[in-house]
Amino acid sequence: MGKASNQQSLSKTRLEAFSDGVFAIAITLLVLDVVVHPPGSLSEQLIHAWPSYVAYVISFLTIGAAWISHTTLTERLGHLDSVFLRLNLLVLLVVAFLPFPTHLVAESLRNVNDERIAVTVYGLTLLTIRLIGTLMVAYAKREKLFISQGEGAELKRDGSKLIPVLLGYTLAIMLGLVFPRVAVIIYFGIAIYLVLPLSELTKSLSRY
Amino acid sequence: MGKASNQQSLSKTRLEAFSDGVFAIAITLLVLDVVVHPPGSLSEQLIHAWPSYVAYVISFLTIGAAWISHTTLTERLGHLDSVFLRLNLLVLLVVAFLPFPTHLVAESLRNVNDERIAVTVYGLTLLTIRLIGTLMVAYAKREKLFISQGEGAELKRDGSKLIPVLLGYTLAIMLGLVFPRVAVIIYFGIAIYLVLPLSELTKSLSRY
Amino acid sequence: MGKASNQQSLSKTRLEAFSDGVFAIAITLLVLDVVVHPPGSLSEQLIHAWPSYVAYVISFLTIGAAWISHTTLTERLGHLDSVFLRLNLLVLLVVAFLPFPTHLVAESLRNVNDERIAVTVYGLTLLTIRLIGTLMVAYAKREKLFISQGEGAELKRDGSKLIPVLLGYTLAIMLGLVFPRVAVIIYFGIAIYLVLPLSELTKSLSRY
Amino acid sequence: MGKASNQQSLSKTRLEAFSDGVFAIAITLLVLDVVVHPPGSLSEQLIHAWPSYVAYVISFLTIGAAWISHTTLTERLGHLDSVFLRLNLLVLLVVAFLPFPTHLVAESLRNVNDERIAVTVYGLTLLTIRLIGTLMVAYAKREKLFISQGEGAELKRDGSKLIPVLLGYTLAIMLGLVFPRVAVIIYFGIAIYLVLPLSELTKSLSRY
Repeated sequence: MGKASNQQSLSKTRLEAFSDGVFAIAITLLVLDVVVHPPGSLSEQLIHAWPSYVAYVISFLTIGAAWISHTTLTERLGHLDSVFLRLNLLVLLVVAFLPFPTHLVAESLRNVNDERIAVTVYGLTLLTIRLIGTLMVAYAKREKLFISQGEGAELKRDGSKLIPVLLGYTLAIMLGLVFPRVAVIIYFGIAIYLVLPLSELTKSLSRY
Repeated sequence: MGKASNQQSLSKTRLEAFSDGVFAIAITLLVLDVVVHPPGSLSEQLIHAWPSYVAYVISFLTIGAAWISHTTLTERLGHLDSVFLRLNLLVLLVVAFLPFPTHLVAESLRNVNDERIAVTVYGLTLLTIRLIGTLMVAYAKREKLFISQGEGAELKRDGSKLIPVLLGYTLAIMLGLVFPRVAVIIYFGIAIYLVLPLSELTKSLSRY
Repeated sequence: MGKASNQQSLSKTRLEAFSDGVFAIAITLLVLDVVVHPPGSLSEQLIHAWPSYVAYVISFLTIGAAWISHTTLTERLGHLDSVFLRLNLLVLLVVAFLPFPTHLVAESLRNVNDERIAVTVYGLTLLTIRLIGTLMVAYAKREKLFISQGEGAELKRDGSKLIPVLLGYTLAIMLGLVFPRVAVIIYFGIAIYLVLPLSELTKSLSRY
Repeated sequence: MGKASNQQSLSKTRLEAFSDGVFAIAITLLVLDVVVHPPGSLSEQLIHAWPSYVAYVISFLTIGAAWISHTTLTERLGHLDSVFLRLNLLVLLVVAFLPFPTHLVAESLRNVNDERIAVTVYGLTLLTIRLIGTLMVAYAKREKLFISQGEGAELKRDGSKLIPVLLGYTLAIMLGLVFPRVAVIIYFGIAIYLVLPLSELTKSLSRY
């Protein structure tokens, strides 16, 4: 294996604490892009700022979903290795970057010309977060880093959502080049889909 | 139950660490809205900035109280489920949003026309935080997520404050449409009331 | 005692995690006030910005010292009570506020008229942090919250620094009304004094 | 030894939590310097902003590498002492400062005159982080703070990179006085070199 020697020196607890910190900060910094701009009365400004609320909610749910995926993944890990640690750094690099495209969307949805570009950059960032997350799961599987054979219910659910999500992002990115607002609606839908535990809800509702 | 299967994959520790992070960041970001504006000497600017201090203290105490409620709730939990995890994400979404209405109040208390709107948005956000918190407690009770039968003294105290707090917020939101500064005073009073452990203080004082 | 009943519901771990978060964020937000302003070449701007470096280092060391005091205090605690939890929230309120007076000092050391006010507000904030910290130690002692009888070496060292530090702050605040830059030098000295483990250094040096 | 008496009062857990917080916040604040400036269409502005992406990635990887070094160091520690705690505060002071030179580089790579100064300040900050990190390892070795005799694979790898990294930084700082963009490329190379587990990759690739 070649990796057994330095296994002990890589702490899962520290990786989780640092990652939780980055997720928590990135998700909280999003609010800095919710701003109102003159001119107009405050109520006019607040209505005018609707794209920044939409961008806030989509990015919040997307980072929230990425954090849930991260939690369910690292919890199943029996040990880490050096490569996993770096993949983790890579996903954090993109998650911590998300406030920037969020800002672009919040600012540009009022300008028809800039909408397409902002929404495309945004969609590519969302897609990249999911792709690196998928890579981390694949790497952990290949290197047998999991505690037990099974992946657990949450991780399986996450995996079963992968294909629809990747298709959804790809479709939205292409659509967004022409109809940026349709793409934003799709990103909103994907964020909701990622966060909601659909099978749980179905079971829960079927009890009534 | 249908949930027992993936119970283990949801970590209370990670949820607490992530939530603590978001609470801590949101509460610390509030200071970014304490700013002075020209013109005038610094002492004039500092006096002029009083609404931003008031907004800072109210929001700080409100997030502090929400954090105390969150701590006392999650500590009593024996296990989490997928729905609770999402309710938690929802309360964090609103807590992390609070710096925005705080900013509105800090900026607009000097402008008579905008005061009413800013204070109303602020009050609705404070009320929403408390409502989702209440929903989390109710859900945890219904799904029997608590370790033991009792809820513990802190959680009971929190519960006993619920009705006065909801009434207070509702009253202040309505009043604020006409007298925004009266509403701000009520929000300040509610924040103090939420944070202070009144029964403890009474006991403590009665010892002298 | 009246408090024994809800002791268990107050978690030291959560209090530490949340406090560490606020300390870490407040200390890291300080860099946002290190800024250069036109006009001039970048080297001129960088030289001109010296007050913001001074303010950054003093505030960083002061929060660092407050964090060390907090760590050494909470580590000795066997249990928490509701009042201690609120005192802790109070010290965090002032620590999280420090970036604002730091900003005032960073901006105003170039303007003779504003210097006195900025430095006075800054000094009062530093003094308040230390006073609430002292109150927390006193409260923990009176309510017998410590694990064992002793307070530990770090806490004793911290206590032995209290009188000189309070005298230093009081002197500096009064001096700062006339000679603000002298006050800044004293704040810098106190920050170094608070952080440095003088007795350890003496012992360490005496080994050579 | 003279230090044994207060060993217990210094918690490794708290030091790690606080440090993880500062690393996580500093690394996430970097995104605040990724901004676009008018004039021009959004696509022109986005292309124009390339230096801020470069600065973001280099600073992110550098803080990431510093965090990995920090993790691998503190994990090997059996106990802390007062001096180590202060060295740790010192490295955090510089890490938390990094967003400022990052901002300088992001803003000035478009202005030929300011490039040299910004890149020099940036390089000196990167070098200082590595030097204090090295000092911490050296101090821990001298004071025998490690759990066992060995340092572990990650720490050894980190040590083996020290000389090339210090040489690289020194070379880049000198080169940057004349060719700032060449220096930026070297900083990028060093960041990649620091983060990548080269020996692991070689082993991993040799398996195919």
